[in-house]
Amino acid sequence: MSNIINIGLLGLGTVGGGVAAVLAQNGAAINARAEGTVRIKAALVRDLAKSRAGAVPLTTAPADILTDDSVAIVVELMGGVEPARAYVLEALRRKKSVVTANKDLLALHAEEIFRVAAENGQDVYFEGAVAGGIPIIAALRTSLTADDIRSVTGIINGTTNYILTAMTEQGSDFAAVLREAQELGYAESDPTADVEGLDAARKLAILATLAFHSPVSISDVYTEGITGVTAADISYARELGCVIKLLATARKTDEGVEVHVHPTLLPERHPLATVRDVFNAVYVVGNALGESMFYGRGAGALPTASAVLSDVIRAARARMSGTQGRTGLDIDRRLPIKPGRDYRSSYYIRLKVRDEPRVFASLALFFAEADISFASIIQKPRRNGNAEIVLVTHPCRESQMEQALASVRAYSKLEKIYNMIRVWNE
Amino acid sequence: MSNIINIGLLGLGTVGGGVAAVLAQNGAAINARAEGTVRIKAALVRDLAKSRAGAVPLTTAPADILTDDSVAIVVELMGGVEPARAYVLEALRRKKSVVTANKDLLALHAEEIFRVAAENGQDVYFEGAVAGGIPIIAALRTSLTADDIRSVTGIINGTTNYILTAMTEQGSDFAAVLREAQELGYAESDPTADVEGLDAARKLAILATLAFHSPVSISDVYTEGITGVTAADISYARELGCVIKLLATARKTDEGVEVHVHPTLLPERHPLATVRDVFNAVYVVGNALGESMFYGRGAGALPTASAVLSDVIRAARARMSGTQGRTGLDIDRRLPIKPGRDYRSSYYIRLKVRDEPRVFASLALFFAEADISFASIIQKPRRNGNAEIVLVTHPCRESQMEQALASVRAYSKLEKIYNMIRVWNE
Repeated sequence: MSNIINIGLLGLGTVGGGVAAVLAQNGAAINARAEGTVRIKAALVRDLAKSRAGAVPLTTAPADILTDDSVAIVVELMGGVEPARAYVLEALRRKKSVVTANKDLLALHAEEIFRVAAENGQDVYFEGAVAGGIPIIAALRTSLTADDIRSVTGIINGTTNYILTAMTEQGSDFAAVLREAQELGYAESDPTADVEGLDAARKLAILATLAFHSPVSISDVYTEGITGVTAADISYARELGCVIKLLATARKTDEGVEVHVHPTLLPERHPLATVRDVFNAVYVVGNALGESMFYGRGAGALPTASAVLSDVIRAARARMSGTQGRTGLDIDRRLPIKPGRDYRSSYYIRLKVRDEPRVFASLALFFAEADISFASIIQKPRRNGNAEIVLVTHPCRESQMEQALASVRAYSKLEKIYNMIRVWNE
Repeated sequence: MSNIINIGLLGLGTVGGGVAAVLAQNGAAINARAEGTVRIKAALVRDLAKSRAGAVPLTTAPADILTDDSVAIVVELMGGVEPARAYVLEALRRKKSVVTANKDLLALHAEEIFRVAAENGQDVYFEGAVAGGIPIIAALRTSLTADDIRSVTGIINGTTNYILTAMTEQGSDFAAVLREAQELGYAESDPTADVEGLDAARKLAILATLAFHSPVSISDVYTEGITGVTAADISYARELGCVIKLLATARKTDEGVEVHVHPTLLPERHPLATVRDVFNAVYVVGNALGESMFYGRGAGALPTASAVLSDVIRAARARMSGTQGRTGLDIDRRLPIKPGRDYRSSYYIRLKVRDEPRVFASLALFFAEADISFASIIQKPRRNGNAEIVLVTHPCRESQMEQALASVRAYSKLEKIYNMIRVWNE
């Protein structure tokens, strides 16, 4: 009996090409770990005429892969929700294992996909869907299993981390760095999903679901992007011993699960503060293991292909030993989602007021009335009779901050609120 | 049929107590993941009279655990080589799964233990043996499986990292910080195994074996401790944009495997440079995944217990599905070990010479004759007619450096070679 493991690729773009390349280069080692010969039986593409490197058999008919009984593992790398969802469900119903790197699909349809997988005794692997080359999915599913995970905090969008790193190290403004990132191919021509935090929110929903064993969907995630962060904010952050990062945080509290993506002032000494450029990292706190962090390349053809092929090896081994259908999302509770206005955080607020007597006293009073106290205050001399002030508060509820800001906005001596950015609290 | 998973603990010290405590606290989640009720059937101790927290049944007779057919998983937490080795082999022969956190045992007897495991169709899990709360063993065994791992570099000894961090941040000398670490319980009363790098060497041998699928033993590891590192060296390192860390490095080269543990000047921007205090981290470079890093608490009762219990869950699941005996060390080659004198490295050399004309020219000539060039030179005015000089070389072979140093040592104007420390090269 020949031990050939046929895989079918749905999609042969950047990641699909990476899978073919890594399989060609590391095939001997991959086959040794998979206990068989992993072979790409066919790859689904849109256009046969478009020439591609390598000797992968191409097809434009999904059925060539989905109805081929010799294909044991379907690797979905098309991206987008449909028709990827339909193909994945079809593959599971035909008793194939599924490997996917599609975060959009999972963020929206994970429960359905895992239900169909369970009904058919099959598995869905998705290491490539979150933080490419970082094996955080396997860590949450199979390594940190003895812990009560308290929080997961990630830098899980390479584009925004590249932009914030460049703004920090070059002192440039957002728009200039975004253009540069687009030229380098680190940002899409339509960068909305990245810079508005939506991509990070999708990944966070997946991580939170796995970490807390409770369903978390994108719509639960409070999301704020980095387009409002300026070089001035980054410079003040440095004075305060902080860097600004787009953090995706999921935290289990007594009042429910908090899930939010927003720019955050993070102390320079925090392990996440040192994650530069397009690198990703996921910081996990468990009640037994304490603080841990997983760092690596979050995207790119080869790191994602490495994750996808490690999943192919898992799938192959499970099929070989007849133990398909034993991995799931392990959802066994439905924790409430905490309303955003109940979140507690420290805040950085940068504003411009008339530089007159009693103005600071009035400002201080607005915050005092909302029961908010200050951790740091920076005021520098300014021109034109105005003063720029940076306030950093002690932790308070979002609802308290809204109350204080309503008073500040109504204040006749206020010239402008430049920005409000949350500050990291453990 | 009741689904009870009986485990037997060999040893109930710090880690054993942690296992009992974490099982008590996180039991519901652990049982959900293990698909059964994990119960400590008995714990082997030396002295029944010594009171212990918790309701763990105690015994002083190893046979009470090893010959009890209801015990499915033996958890070896005694440390040391014998009798741990004998008990582990006996457990495997009696068809039990073994979980161990014993690096000394594995560094010396891994091949024998895994051979006996295979002969008996059983598994040995050892996440707790290296870098406690960091799931690096699972990452190497089951996640980074599609990669050709090029190098593994770890800060894998908490004691020495605590000492070097304190020396760096307080400017203190080694002896003072060691005393402080001993008072805090971060260093043993006999600190030799830690400060001389032996503990790190044991863990490195295990990591290198897994990463390269080729046997690496402690005796292959070139080992140098941190006792010679001074506050002055750390201060010069900072001038050069570096910190000094005890790095354990395994690298696959065309000439064979390099495995070495020694103090290293590491650029401040390297992810490992930010690992402080007793934290550990393992930096892995693969040909597809690129650079990745795994960070966390390398020791301590609870982080190690978290790792041990995640292994218990793995073992329980494998037994449940009847797939024991499918995990091994995956050794499938025997790569040569590169001789130390062929290692290439940059070097930091600090020495004192007579401050006279032509002295520096002579020094430079000694290095030039060995075909070594300099990357940085620091010379500061000194008293008593002597000059202190710090040289940083470009990469060269150890044999070249030996040649140059022989000339320097024979030089009549040399007062003293204070120190020679290797400098990080990618």
